[in-house]
Amino acid sequence: MIKVGVVGGTGYTGVELLRLLARHPGVELTAITSRGEAGMAVSDMFPSLRRRVSLKFVTPQDAGLEKCDAVFFATPNGIAMKQAAELVAAGVRVIDLAADFRIRDVAEWQKWYGMDHASPELVAEAVYGLPEVNREQIRSARVLANPGCYPTAVQLGFLPLVEAGLIDIGHLIADAKSGVSGAGRKAEVHTLLPEAADSFKAYGVPGHRHLPEIRQGLSLAAGQQVGLTFVPHLTPMIRGIHATLYGRLKPGVDASDLQGLYERRYAGEAFVDVMPAGSHPETRSVRASNLCRIAVHRPQGGDTVVVLSVIDNLVKGAAGQAVQNLNIMFGFDEDAGLDIVPVSP
Amino acid sequence: MIKVGVVGGTGYTGVELLRLLARHPGVELTAITSRGEAGMAVSDMFPSLRRRVSLKFVTPQDAGLEKCDAVFFATPNGIAMKQAAELVAAGVRVIDLAADFRIRDVAEWQKWYGMDHASPELVAEAVYGLPEVNREQIRSARVLANPGCYPTAVQLGFLPLVEAGLIDIGHLIADAKSGVSGAGRKAEVHTLLPEAADSFKAYGVPGHRHLPEIRQGLSLAAGQQVGLTFVPHLTPMIRGIHATLYGRLKPGVDASDLQGLYERRYAGEAFVDVMPAGSHPETRSVRASNLCRIAVHRPQGGDTVVVLSVIDNLVKGAAGQAVQNLNIMFGFDEDAGLDIVPVSP
Amino acid sequence: MIKVGVVGGTGYTGVELLRLLARHPGVELTAITSRGEAGMAVSDMFPSLRRRVSLKFVTPQDAGLEKCDAVFFATPNGIAMKQAAELVAAGVRVIDLAADFRIRDVAEWQKWYGMDHASPELVAEAVYGLPEVNREQIRSARVLANPGCYPTAVQLGFLPLVEAGLIDIGHLIADAKSGVSGAGRKAEVHTLLPEAADSFKAYGVPGHRHLPEIRQGLSLAAGQQVGLTFVPHLTPMIRGIHATLYGRLKPGVDASDLQGLYERRYAGEAFVDVMPAGSHPETRSVRASNLCRIAVHRPQGGDTVVVLSVIDNLVKGAAGQAVQNLNIMFGFDEDAGLDIVPVSP
Amino acid sequence: MIKVGVVGGTGYTGVELLRLLARHPGVELTAITSRGEAGMAVSDMFPSLRRRVSLKFVTPQDAGLEKCDAVFFATPNGIAMKQAAELVAAGVRVIDLAADFRIRDVAEWQKWYGMDHASPELVAEAVYGLPEVNREQIRSARVLANPGCYPTAVQLGFLPLVEAGLIDIGHLIADAKSGVSGAGRKAEVHTLLPEAADSFKAYGVPGHRHLPEIRQGLSLAAGQQVGLTFVPHLTPMIRGIHATLYGRLKPGVDASDLQGLYERRYAGEAFVDVMPAGSHPETRSVRASNLCRIAVHRPQGGDTVVVLSVIDNLVKGAAGQAVQNLNIMFGFDEDAGLDIVPVSP
Repeated sequence: MIKVGVVGGTGYTGVELLRLLARHPGVELTAITSRGEAGMAVSDMFPSLRRRVSLKFVTPQDAGLEKCDAVFFATPNGIAMKQAAELVAAGVRVIDLAADFRIRDVAEWQKWYGMDHASPELVAEAVYGLPEVNREQIRSARVLANPGCYPTAVQLGFLPLVEAGLIDIGHLIADAKSGVSGAGRKAEVHTLLPEAADSFKAYGVPGHRHLPEIRQGLSLAAGQQVGLTFVPHLTPMIRGIHATLYGRLKPGVDASDLQGLYERRYAGEAFVDVMPAGSHPETRSVRASNLCRIAVHRPQGGDTVVVLSVIDNLVKGAAGQAVQNLNIMFGFDEDAGLDIVPVSP
Repeated sequence: MIKVGVVGGTGYTGVELLRLLARHPGVELTAITSRGEAGMAVSDMFPSLRRRVSLKFVTPQDAGLEKCDAVFFATPNGIAMKQAAELVAAGVRVIDLAADFRIRDVAEWQKWYGMDHASPELVAEAVYGLPEVNREQIRSARVLANPGCYPTAVQLGFLPLVEAGLIDIGHLIADAKSGVSGAGRKAEVHTLLPEAADSFKAYGVPGHRHLPEIRQGLSLAAGQQVGLTFVPHLTPMIRGIHATLYGRLKPGVDASDLQGLYERRYAGEAFVDVMPAGSHPETRSVRASNLCRIAVHRPQGGDTVVVLSVIDNLVKGAAGQAVQNLNIMFGFDEDAGLDIVPVSP
Repeated sequence: MIKVGVVGGTGYTGVELLRLLARHPGVELTAITSRGEAGMAVSDMFPSLRRRVSLKFVTPQDAGLEKCDAVFFATPNGIAMKQAAELVAAGVRVIDLAADFRIRDVAEWQKWYGMDHASPELVAEAVYGLPEVNREQIRSARVLANPGCYPTAVQLGFLPLVEAGLIDIGHLIADAKSGVSGAGRKAEVHTLLPEAADSFKAYGVPGHRHLPEIRQGLSLAAGQQVGLTFVPHLTPMIRGIHATLYGRLKPGVDASDLQGLYERRYAGEAFVDVMPAGSHPETRSVRASNLCRIAVHRPQGGDTVVVLSVIDNLVKGAAGQAVQNLNIMFGFDEDAGLDIVPVSP
Repeated sequence: MIKVGVVGGTGYTGVELLRLLARHPGVELTAITSRGEAGMAVSDMFPSLRRRVSLKFVTPQDAGLEKCDAVFFATPNGIAMKQAAELVAAGVRVIDLAADFRIRDVAEWQKWYGMDHASPELVAEAVYGLPEVNREQIRSARVLANPGCYPTAVQLGFLPLVEAGLIDIGHLIADAKSGVSGAGRKAEVHTLLPEAADSFKAYGVPGHRHLPEIRQGLSLAAGQQVGLTFVPHLTPMIRGIHATLYGRLKPGVDASDLQGLYERRYAGEAFVDVMPAGSHPETRSVRASNLCRIAVHRPQGGDTVVVLSVIDNLVKGAAGQAVQNLNIMFGFDEDAGLDIVPVSP
């Protein structure tokens, strides 16, 4: 049993981590921090965790995080970068669910996130935790940057095409739709039920922070800079991301077996399911699970490939992938704590 | 007052027509047909119409449709084409909310709709009822083909760019999202609340019947054949369509005033609202109204234009546009019966 | 045309007032106040009002409210009581959509609302604006207390039974369910979509502020103090209240024509619709309209009467009833501005 | 490992059984029947079960059910009663999730279910599978009648009060609210998303089939016939039942420790969680789990007790309770296959 702490346990990624870790066979949860709620039983705030999590929230200074084997940061952007170095120095392995260590170009990060980076040196060593790309580096990571929700769905969907060099990487289009939990458990007007239910909208069209993250990952896969138009949308549902991806086939390429390309790329992956040809995966088919389901189409036999990629934004898009990374880092079965059948209906 | 009949009053477009016509100052509703429900008071099936609609459903043969000035067909595809000729011969003006008269190429229609067309000669004279394109021809139409819901949102969004020749029309992309009422009031499993709520999916990626309709309209606007990838999605909400449209600017064109282009194109249009630059229209901002709201973006100043276009699929996407067409055909104010403030929240 | 101002235009009752007043034939909207948003165009905050409301928010001091014929307070509790006296003195008629003037017993009000009352003398003269009970007094009201949402649905449902003396008024039960807009347009965690969607809960079981209001109204109808258990619930929908009411028949009373009792009580009421015997009204059957629909049942022929009463909480439960009261106060047709067909589906 | 078959695997209780049994450590699923879908892979109909259930649907005759240790009937009412006798004779233990064996009074059953009972003799020996009442009899049951969803929530909520003799059992009131999955996976208009979303309604007020079932259970607990008013409602959510229960304290009883009464009654129960005094349990706090959470209130210190009881209708209200019963019958840990943390948000 390893000792694990969670910094910032009151948001959606935090409570989802607790849901998953509560059943993890190799993890002992030792501390869950919250400055604002210190002293409150975790299960008083989240009754779904009654009988499962008996801890109380503690302040970060009382948490004894330096005695943990691993610490998850389920905090807003800009927190982990200030606290990780000290923990790493103490031998604690850090998994950040926020964006602090995702972008290798610190200047680019600072532009998109609007703050100075507190530990650029850790950015350099941090491993981007998309297991389907970086599994080997993840094993030994001291600082793990857990991918964003949109970037997970979009990269997993585009990777086979980009790696195989089949499409024009100068003009990728990712039209992505997210459930409202993606906006976090923050008191805001625009995500109130009466504002967000029974309605649909795009947001962030001029530029969204996940754009540089996706671009970085796909550029690494392509071996050159990709061009990407990324349009996120808010969907009236709690969980789920559906990415609809468009790429134009390069002239002359052999696109006769896109299905096989996808199946081979993800053969052996526990959490990526390539659906049969012609499928339209629904977000509910992965609800509450760590799965990504993907279908690839070539409508009307034309030169535009359409990829459909669905995840649960709180699981494969956040807490589940973080646990998957923990499993890889500590040598557990990759699906330890993640052996969940999707909840449908 | 003109006399108006509705054929097929038990579906969503039918009941929405009744909601609008009940307050139309120039219309006397004389008959609402339903084979299955003949004899039942309309307001027994639709309690929202109590005190507003006092008619009972009648069979088509008892409806006296030939004595109407205008007849709406709110029927499944393939009904109006069999009954319109006789009505037209009797001097009745026909407005079909289904697809029977939308596609000018009868062979193409037969391919997509899987049946023989019963009156190709009426297809030739039918007017496609998108007022923002065909207002003049609509005035004198004897047979009016009311546009589909997706085609309305997509065409209104793309038209200014296509007409101005600014984008590569060989590779248009329309990623469209619809509320579930778009699937109709039919007893089916896949649109049950437990199937369709809190989930999101694409459908019809290999080919959807609205593809040829959109392609026809945009090709006419472009003066040449357009290429279109159209991906519809089912969204867990009752009403609303959000079309996210992608077009690539042709090299060298002047795209410095896309906002002005859109504003000029729709100046004077009562039901198309070009939102301020930078906007993200929500479907609820048009809920229950006949409006289409549009925003145009050029993310990161690149060569991809993104257009956001929202309508209420049952109003501007069906019954409302049909009433707008009626108004044009009979010389009413174009917003007669359509003077509705969107219901939000 | 009368001049009308709205104090507090940024909440749900405020924007709903604007939706209704925008089409009122006898009203000129002259000012909409908001301290926080002064200077902003109303339609920038509420795009649904584009082309309908051209005003900007102004501060209360710049609003010229004293020159209005009527002023609506769509403010939190405790605001109107401080500002009404001055307006009344200037000849302005005040309609408060909050609770400041609803409870005649000032001590009771202070207990439930947790503050001192700033103008008890206006409480004494204020008229409780339930038109189906107080229409005559409303005509000449200078200060009108617009009823709460739950109290409207519950009182209209219970009144015929209570007035007729048929049920044990010592043990009334009102089990009420509200859409989330009833909680207001406030940034709070518990009404975020991911918290409130796809879930159901009771709240306020130990005591809710609408309890004394309902008790007061029913006690006046009964001529003696009633006993009431009131349990409100939060329902995952935007609008609508469904009150399920339980009363036990007194021994020996003639309960053979409950349907007739209800129909006679509300004969001639424009906004109360007694449904046919055996009905189960849905909240959507009144969506966006000022209607209350009621059905009365006596399950299994036993001695418990069950009444089902539905309203749109933002219309008959707030802004619509306020406009209805305005109409009565100023001699307009009672349905001026309220001639809306419910939006269903 | 025991061999288990499922008859009727295409409805919501069927697929939920499969979700739970797929992870049950002691169960080998050997057959899932469906006349209509025989030959289809289960996971083609339910993609959430991909990689979890590899069986195809088979016809009942090809299923080899007689070789199973246990067979679940997830079928419409009236099926199990025809097939159970033969299986029981073959030594198979039968768990019926429908209503065929729930009502001991066969004449009463026939009245409510509108058909003749095919095996009254099995009704006599069947055990009603509410473990918190009948755990001992369940161990040896050959035919187990799995309780209905409403009856589970209502009985667990009322039992402590009824068993303790504290309330007037002549006038119990159960106001219950269910998610739409309770209506089953049947193609019907009234449960389509556009019909059932964003709306709320009561149904079955004159009489619902769960009324006699609840009355039977509570009468057994009381030792005499109880009187019950039961009003079910349809709530716009997928899963969950919230029962709000009202009982009047008998004069003179000691009701000073209702909280303790509930806690003692359910001490040691793995799946009944008595919430702290003052709580308002949400249905989402039990989503996807087999838990029932209960809170007991005495509003304003009066003589009406209000009990709030929530379950997931598909788990504790159907498939989960069936697996719990299987566990008891075969000596597994009672939470085998049911060790699920509720999914919230």
